[in-house]
Amino acid sequence: MFLWLLSLACLSPLLAQSIWPLPNVFEVTSQGTTRNIAPLLKYSTLNSENKEIEINTLTRLYSRYNNLIFSRATGHNGRNKDAIHSVKVVVVDTSEAYPKFDTDESYSIAIDTEVTIKAQTIYGVIRAVESLSQLIEFNVIEKKYEVLNVPIKVEDAPRFNHRGFLLDTSRHYHSVATLKKLLDSMAYNKLNVFHWHIVDTQSFAFESTRYPTLWNGAYTNAERYSKEDMIDLVEYGRDRGIKIMIEFDVPGHAASWCVGIPEICPSTSCLQPLDPSTNKTFEVIDGLVAECTDEVSGNSLFPYEFIHLGGDEVDTTCWTTTPHIDKWMVENSLNASTTYKYFVEKAGQLALEHKKSPVQWVEVFENFGSALDKNIVIHVWKDPEIINDIVSAGYKTIASSYDYWYLDHLELTWETFYSYEPTKFILDSSNNQYLIGGEVCMWSETVDDSDLFATVYPRTSAGAERMWTNIDIVANNDMDDVLERLEVFKCLMLERGIGAAPVTNKIGRFQPREPGSCYVQRR
Amino acid sequence: MFLWLLSLACLSPLLAQSIWPLPNVFEVTSQGTTRNIAPLLKYSTLNSENKEIEINTLTRLYSRYNNLIFSRATGHNGRNKDAIHSVKVVVVDTSEAYPKFDTDESYSIAIDTEVTIKAQTIYGVIRAVESLSQLIEFNVIEKKYEVLNVPIKVEDAPRFNHRGFLLDTSRHYHSVATLKKLLDSMAYNKLNVFHWHIVDTQSFAFESTRYPTLWNGAYTNAERYSKEDMIDLVEYGRDRGIKIMIEFDVPGHAASWCVGIPEICPSTSCLQPLDPSTNKTFEVIDGLVAECTDEVSGNSLFPYEFIHLGGDEVDTTCWTTTPHIDKWMVENSLNASTTYKYFVEKAGQLALEHKKSPVQWVEVFENFGSALDKNIVIHVWKDPEIINDIVSAGYKTIASSYDYWYLDHLELTWETFYSYEPTKFILDSSNNQYLIGGEVCMWSETVDDSDLFATVYPRTSAGAERMWTNIDIVANNDMDDVLERLEVFKCLMLERGIGAAPVTNKIGRFQPREPGSCYVQRR
Repeated sequence: MFLWLLSLACLSPLLAQSIWPLPNVFEVTSQGTTRNIAPLLKYSTLNSENKEIEINTLTRLYSRYNNLIFSRATGHNGRNKDAIHSVKVVVVDTSEAYPKFDTDESYSIAIDTEVTIKAQTIYGVIRAVESLSQLIEFNVIEKKYEVLNVPIKVEDAPRFNHRGFLLDTSRHYHSVATLKKLLDSMAYNKLNVFHWHIVDTQSFAFESTRYPTLWNGAYTNAERYSKEDMIDLVEYGRDRGIKIMIEFDVPGHAASWCVGIPEICPSTSCLQPLDPSTNKTFEVIDGLVAECTDEVSGNSLFPYEFIHLGGDEVDTTCWTTTPHIDKWMVENSLNASTTYKYFVEKAGQLALEHKKSPVQWVEVFENFGSALDKNIVIHVWKDPEIINDIVSAGYKTIASSYDYWYLDHLELTWETFYSYEPTKFILDSSNNQYLIGGEVCMWSETVDDSDLFATVYPRTSAGAERMWTNIDIVANNDMDDVLERLEVFKCLMLERGIGAAPVTNKIGRFQPREPGSCYVQRR
Repeated sequence: MFLWLLSLACLSPLLAQSIWPLPNVFEVTSQGTTRNIAPLLKYSTLNSENKEIEINTLTRLYSRYNNLIFSRATGHNGRNKDAIHSVKVVVVDTSEAYPKFDTDESYSIAIDTEVTIKAQTIYGVIRAVESLSQLIEFNVIEKKYEVLNVPIKVEDAPRFNHRGFLLDTSRHYHSVATLKKLLDSMAYNKLNVFHWHIVDTQSFAFESTRYPTLWNGAYTNAERYSKEDMIDLVEYGRDRGIKIMIEFDVPGHAASWCVGIPEICPSTSCLQPLDPSTNKTFEVIDGLVAECTDEVSGNSLFPYEFIHLGGDEVDTTCWTTTPHIDKWMVENSLNASTTYKYFVEKAGQLALEHKKSPVQWVEVFENFGSALDKNIVIHVWKDPEIINDIVSAGYKTIASSYDYWYLDHLELTWETFYSYEPTKFILDSSNNQYLIGGEVCMWSETVDDSDLFATVYPRTSAGAERMWTNIDIVANNDMDDVLERLEVFKCLMLERGIGAAPVTNKIGRFQPREPGSCYVQRR
């Protein structure tokens, strides 16, 4: 009865019928029934005792997807006797608690005369409803919503627990509205970690309650994120199964801290790295970490288990050329290199004291190897070969190689993003367990709200499938089929207001080269 | 008490306080009161007898703007005793009927201890609430909404009745969701005509009920606009005071018609201009015009008084080289030029028979001058000098000169869009009455949903102020002040999800050149 999906092109009279990222099991019935879907779908949620329950997160989810799926006018209600009217959702763990690193996101969908979704957690339901939404097509000719090739069966679970998107909101400020739209788009791609690189050399837009002068380092009064904005965004993300991992990049990339607290910087002429010789520097970092992680009435501002503390690209010149720091190093028998180690270890320790796992960029491992605390997570942005050493030494690691997953590298095409296998250099596969996931990274030197989405999509989608889908499927995909599916998914994103660039661009965010269809573009 | 707005920079501790496009009277109180605004504002609508009434269009407007203005979390309700809680709206003509060419859009706003809006029509109220929204700033530091320099007085009315934006949805299909977002953005800019260039050589996405094969000329099944989509968009526009002017560009730019109805094209190898020798061609055009304009139970599909029928860039080679057309021309004592005249006049006549004013591109005037029916409106896309001849001959005209207002000309900067004065070449100012307005034009060869907004904004905003604001104000503006206001307005558009490009780009849709603030960019 079921046919394993081999060629997408032949399945649909309209377009490739698929789900992006590709589920682990996706069975459609070749020559199966086309079922009308009556807008709006009525969802009912059942617990494992088969009792109907109301879960606020899911009520919002259903409403959101009804709006998203049924956005086109039909002039009729689509309700005939054979149409599917309702979705039954069975969820085992009904908790709305903040998702953890290893929260179960698995789900199944069965579409026949009705739709049944099953999941262990509400976060699995969120993934399931996104998948379902991609199977419901609007048939503009017949003015109705439908699902082709029914019965359909989907069984799915993510490959990696940490599937991230890094956005740098320091080189350019991105509005809260844009960040919400980004979170929407991440949910469409089943990404689940927004790595918020909120502070860098250029601006400090984060509101600190303990150190209220810090955000004087913002570009303007308006280009700031208040605590209320962050609370709002964290909950907006949770509602979509997305955790926010905040980053304070220390001791480099920190010149903007000096506007608000000059005394933690080497001097007024030499701003970064932050001054390691004064306790005040670590007091401020500790204060920020505390504000982000300490629990207030059961919740912390950023409840994810990880907090990123940077540690990359530290040029120690300001330390050696600033007399009081040089003197302090001599007195403490430190040189620039050991001072760097002192700094990043102390920063990591602060995170651990606040019961968070610190994430630091790969330089800390390059410099100090297995001398580092074993609770530090190493984020690899440079050459990926080092991942083998990291996991062999027993450190958790996140893959973001700049030759594959850096979105500001405009010459990297979607194929490059798709082809990067994070475990490639791991020699002993028993160490794969230490590779907890990956992130595509958008450094915003030339990206603001005007070009963000065209720069990051569809390339981010290519990375998202690599992070979600079972490697056996991804590695064996025919790239022409992948392209066809990605074209369709890109057009879906455009329909949803996410301005993804043409797929076959040779460089990121390039405009369409000539008149033509969204779905079939010149390569 | 009031100070005429001279220098914006000094007025606000945050940002330039202004309204884009600039109102005819905009008086703020220097060193005046900063008034808190309590979210959400409560609007009450009063008719001219001071009786409170409910008008559905306005109820939706108030709700929309409450969402738009109060989008940031504050953590409190902003209600202190001095805060403004409510807006009183007085509207004389309470009709929700479709706006006409000369519908009154004037309005006034007074902000003191409360806000009072007055307008002749609901469409004036729509403009007023947009202006009010631009005066309410979010103070992220104090986490509150406020209006600076109160009391404030605004008195405003548009200079031109027809303030248009042309989008070509044939070279690339733009999703219905994107068209709605475009209409939103037009309302922010107080533009009031969406000129929908829906059909061209490349695709025919318009659903014709009478000729249902025509939209087989669409790129794909999905890239089509149904009648229901159009009804939806027309109402969406009306709700925002925006009329839709549909265009069928004949006889050139029409090859996509041949997919559905091959017999109206010269031959299978020579597709356009449409075949003038067969009645079927005019039957089809008449059918389309009828579908768009004939009233069905009191409404037509596109109720605006104007319908655009193209007439531009007609290469008559296919007529002279196709034997049956050449034979027909000889038999009727016509040559290519007189056949062109026959065609465009007949097309225009069809519009008039359906009680619509036909708009045609400037070539028809170039070729036939005052021999044309006086009801034809001439749309000038080429050199603007000809406008003098057109208005002198008593024809209404719309200005869109490609050297100033063509958005696909990426080398045209915002200053160029701002500087174009449509009446410039009119020698006898008594003829200015014939210049009914202008349109900025987005031809979509290299524009799809991914780059549309960065290509058209902020340049469209520059054109919008030229079309809205009194010429005496615009002509005397200091361009540094204009730039500062435009930067602020661009950032507001970004906040509202409209991806306007950096203002100081030397070419359209170029990315930001370096890290920096949204408000203050390198020139």
